[in-house]
Amino acid sequence: MSPNLIAHINKFTPLTDEEAAAISASIKNISIKKKQFLLQPGETCRANYFVSKGVMRLYFINKNGQEQITMFGIENWWITDYSSLETGSPSNYYLQAIEDSEITSLNKKAMDELLIKVPKMERYFRLILQRAFTATMRRLEYFRDQSDEERYRHFVSLFPGFVQRIPQYMLASYLGFTPQFLSKIRAKKV
Amino acid sequence: MSPNLIAHINKFTPLTDEEAAAISASIKNISIKKKQFLLQPGETCRANYFVSKGVMRLYFINKNGQEQITMFGIENWWITDYSSLETGSPSNYYLQAIEDSEITSLNKKAMDELLIKVPKMERYFRLILQRAFTATMRRLEYFRDQSDEERYRHFVSLFPGFVQRIPQYMLASYLGFTPQFLSKIRAKKV
Repeated sequence: MSPNLIAHINKFTPLTDEEAAAISASIKNISIKKKQFLLQPGETCRANYFVSKGVMRLYFINKNGQEQITMFGIENWWITDYSSLETGSPSNYYLQAIEDSEITSLNKKAMDELLIKVPKMERYFRLILQRAFTATMRRLEYFRDQSDEERYRHFVSLFPGFVQRIPQYMLASYLGFTPQFLSKIRAKKV
Repeated sequence: MSPNLIAHINKFTPLTDEEAAAISASIKNISIKKKQFLLQPGETCRANYFVSKGVMRLYFINKNGQEQITMFGIENWWITDYSSLETGSPSNYYLQAIEDSEITSLNKKAMDELLIKVPKMERYFRLILQRAFTATMRRLEYFRDQSDEERYRHFVSLFPGFVQRIPQYMLASYLGFTPQFLSKIRAKKV
């Protein structure tokens, strides 16, 4: 069972009991500890991960040797390296828990079968991906059009609770500036 | 009829003749002239647009008063403002033809009905959006991790033909630097 995932799908496209059972039979619930990895560079990504509880981050080491966070996965978000998952090529990313987390894992083979068994899942993932795409386009615009400080203030206004949950250096890595700069902005606010 | 769109869908999920006919009945083919708009700020985006022939661009005016191109739509790409399309709120974008173009338009109501009539379209759009999302995540990384010159050379290596088709200032606007900088890089290459 994964009540959170079933509830989430129901919000987008209501499921029958049979469909919910087929979904529950396709997934695997895993508990992972803070700092544990679900994926590391060189491995092929084998699953899509739904965060039931906790926070995940997807990052890579950039050419300056720094961690660059490309995505956070909080409650009710899917997180994976779609490129590696789809093509079977090795990933360049780390997928790591920032807190102890409850994850619902849907591996590629199970997902392919589930999409045939429960076609509503096509709709669900289409809607999820449409939101993710729109949000990423928006984020790209912010990166180009906002100053570092504007980007920070805007992010805090959108996700005030989340900002409290993650280490400052990770927020800086996600927003694209140094932890020092972030400290400076925060100090200014106080 | 829209042979290009039907062929494109068939690549992702093979259609029966009946499904192809239902899709053809849902769409509208339009010819638009270079510089013509399909969407302007303040209007609500009412359709998703498939480029059969030509090139479209999606852009907005940024806070410095400059055109900022967020997306190009070339042959076999869909282009729209998903945010306005989905929520019904007014768009901030211009959607404009860069060349005389042949566009297949699928309006929101027709799309909603088509997704029920031909559920394979859910699969098609899911796969399209998954690619678009992955490409946008990658693009966001390039913006953060590559120098302007690296970003330019990388883009040219990916889309050599496309670079020849669009005005230099639009390429600069898409890649996030000034036309002057682009001229300098190009001169260096020669």
